[in-house]
Amino acid sequence: MDTISVIRTKRDGGRLADEQIDWVIDAYTRGEVADEQMSALAMAILLNGMDRAEIARWTAAMIASGERMDFSSLPRPTADKHSTGGVGDKITLPLAPLVAACGAAVPQLSGRGLGHTGGTLDKLESIKGWRASLSNDEMLSVLRDAGAVVCAAGEGLAPADRKLYALRDVTGTVESIPLIASSIMSKKIAEGTGSLVLDVKAGSGAFMKTADDARELARTMVGLGTDHGVRTVALLTDMSTPLGLTAGNALEVRESVEVLAGGGPRDVVDLTLALAREMLDAAGLVAADPAKALADGSAMDVWRRMITAQGGDPSAPLPVAGEREVVTASSTGVLTRLDAYAVGVAAWRLGAGRARKEDPVQAGAGVELHAKPGDMVTAGHPLLTLHTDTPERFAYATEALSGAIDIAPGGVAFTTTPVVLEHIA
Amino acid sequence: MDTISVIRTKRDGGRLADEQIDWVIDAYTRGEVADEQMSALAMAILLNGMDRAEIARWTAAMIASGERMDFSSLPRPTADKHSTGGVGDKITLPLAPLVAACGAAVPQLSGRGLGHTGGTLDKLESIKGWRASLSNDEMLSVLRDAGAVVCAAGEGLAPADRKLYALRDVTGTVESIPLIASSIMSKKIAEGTGSLVLDVKAGSGAFMKTADDARELARTMVGLGTDHGVRTVALLTDMSTPLGLTAGNALEVRESVEVLAGGGPRDVVDLTLALAREMLDAAGLVAADPAKALADGSAMDVWRRMITAQGGDPSAPLPVAGEREVVTASSTGVLTRLDAYAVGVAAWRLGAGRARKEDPVQAGAGVELHAKPGDMVTAGHPLLTLHTDTPERFAYATEALSGAIDIAPGGVAFTTTPVVLEHIA
Repeated sequence: MDTISVIRTKRDGGRLADEQIDWVIDAYTRGEVADEQMSALAMAILLNGMDRAEIARWTAAMIASGERMDFSSLPRPTADKHSTGGVGDKITLPLAPLVAACGAAVPQLSGRGLGHTGGTLDKLESIKGWRASLSNDEMLSVLRDAGAVVCAAGEGLAPADRKLYALRDVTGTVESIPLIASSIMSKKIAEGTGSLVLDVKAGSGAFMKTADDARELARTMVGLGTDHGVRTVALLTDMSTPLGLTAGNALEVRESVEVLAGGGPRDVVDLTLALAREMLDAAGLVAADPAKALADGSAMDVWRRMITAQGGDPSAPLPVAGEREVVTASSTGVLTRLDAYAVGVAAWRLGAGRARKEDPVQAGAGVELHAKPGDMVTAGHPLLTLHTDTPERFAYATEALSGAIDIAPGGVAFTTTPVVLEHIA
Repeated sequence: MDTISVIRTKRDGGRLADEQIDWVIDAYTRGEVADEQMSALAMAILLNGMDRAEIARWTAAMIASGERMDFSSLPRPTADKHSTGGVGDKITLPLAPLVAACGAAVPQLSGRGLGHTGGTLDKLESIKGWRASLSNDEMLSVLRDAGAVVCAAGEGLAPADRKLYALRDVTGTVESIPLIASSIMSKKIAEGTGSLVLDVKAGSGAFMKTADDARELARTMVGLGTDHGVRTVALLTDMSTPLGLTAGNALEVRESVEVLAGGGPRDVVDLTLALAREMLDAAGLVAADPAKALADGSAMDVWRRMITAQGGDPSAPLPVAGEREVVTASSTGVLTRLDAYAVGVAAWRLGAGRARKEDPVQAGAGVELHAKPGDMVTAGHPLLTLHTDTPERFAYATEALSGAIDIAPGGVAFTTTPVVLEHIA
């Protein structure tokens, strides 16, 4: 087996044989296949595709590159959720304790933000004392005690994917459905969950800009999970506008706590409940009532136990940015568009996100929304509030919002998009 | 400017802007663009192509990455030839002194063999004492004294191409007409020749397997040369069967000396004279008579001066391999096919070529042909002789020849292919 023949097979539009896939993933993990060879192969895969059997084998080879976790010793069924990422997507924060409050064990291995979408770990780190890195034993212990755990994935899980993900990020080879699907699913399958609900986002603020691409990604991932014995379903959800009314680390924690307290924006509550229902069904807990667990405070109890178990103080005040600037509505009428990507870039530029994986993030930075598409707005009244510790960035953030806001004269008929677009199983 | 946006432009089927090309070639030469980024870009170029203006700019940027040579101080017009490479292609050896004997200055910067095609420098190094590496001053001095020089290209010429060529070799991105054309032409234009004749080969033993691909490559290169003020023409030539009766280093020097002595195989003589005619016309020496210069010994005189000027002894006996094995004809009839690629691989396996650029080559190893397509052969009589210093390789070399030889019963009509297929200007 040699690297060039594997690259040529895909370059020339052929199918990769099982042995080629097994060999190239193993040799890449060991360093025998060089980064410049793998990036050429990744580009050939991006442009020429892989069929379902190739993607399945590729995923299996990445799982086999590392350790597998096992939650079968837990007394509860496990349920896991993965989102492909979007602006203001804080759903993991209320969802994990909610589903745990309903009787499932929820192990959420999460990531950090890169680019315009935030990272769950960055958000939780704005809580005083909370730490993201746990050993496997600590993770199991939090899961056993609190019912839910949100932490960083260990180094041993799918190391081939870890290496390939970093490479794709710098070589323009991120946007490939086979590579995205195999990356996500190798980690989720290696993690050992019994059931998995995928939140696949479509729209300007998501990786997949169109519903067609998002649907193809969702179907690919559902197929991979099912083939590996994980009960997997996907919701296709809207990411044309930010989720909820906040994008930024501490801002999103605040909003999540509001949801756990029985309040919070309608779209965040709707999506949290829809995903909870799917997770509970997949875990076999069909009688559980997540709306009740939000209303009666049991989800909030799990949240507090979960945060405390990882060193966090759930009662400590959240960090607030030092400086604010208000963006007002330019006219009076119906807000018909508030672009998710633009808000994500603005939040990122304000300091909520990072350009390189080594960069720090500002806990208090981000964008607060005072209206959502469909709401009436008034000329000169606040539409957004920008938060940052580095006020010299206001102009740069505002620039990202240029052309991102449409307001129609009053009286125009406007139908809001529901947050859940499709159910794929 | 950033690397990922350049990669994405080409990945998504767009045109690279002049500034993108200038930046990426310069940044790659300086090491700011990493190998894994350039290989992803090379794969995107291979699969999505470049238009004529992009190829021209890419070539210009590679020329600008290093020094340019200047032969305008010479009293004679310069004429240069480049072959895309084939099995048994020793034409540079008789051609350079022949064209010099007719009044042109012939600076031939040449390469070493990699894979199944031999390298001109490897062939000449089988002559006792001859050395390939000359300083620019030494090169000019040999050119002034002998009229022709064949030597290794200096490190300063198109360093971007040097780096990219090595990268393409290990990343499956060699077979791209835009990348091949710009690689060849950047070196030739930087070398500073006034006129250039391209020998573009088509057939199993060439990079371009079909005449269509070879024609496209030839037209691309002629366009690039012309755009840069170099008088450029191309001959499309046959590489379905080896050139002449030898493939291997010292074996090919022997055959070249036969041609310079007025003998040699018909196809080698025909191609040498055809290319000489093109070079002399391009250099403005329309009255010169290359056939006469072969017949009257003046080309041989230049050969001896040229070899001597680079430390070689043109009278020293050539190295001979320690072991031989004969391959006989399996039936009696007309030899209708003797596959160039198979013979090239056999010669390579016998030790004439190298697998990695650090490997040594055997001077005496190679394949000697006793018949060419169109010749009558007799069952049990010698068809090929294999030469090597490492007889354990005979079986491995013979394996390469399996299926490479067709013999038709006598009486079958067979038309031989002329060596020169087309003239492209």
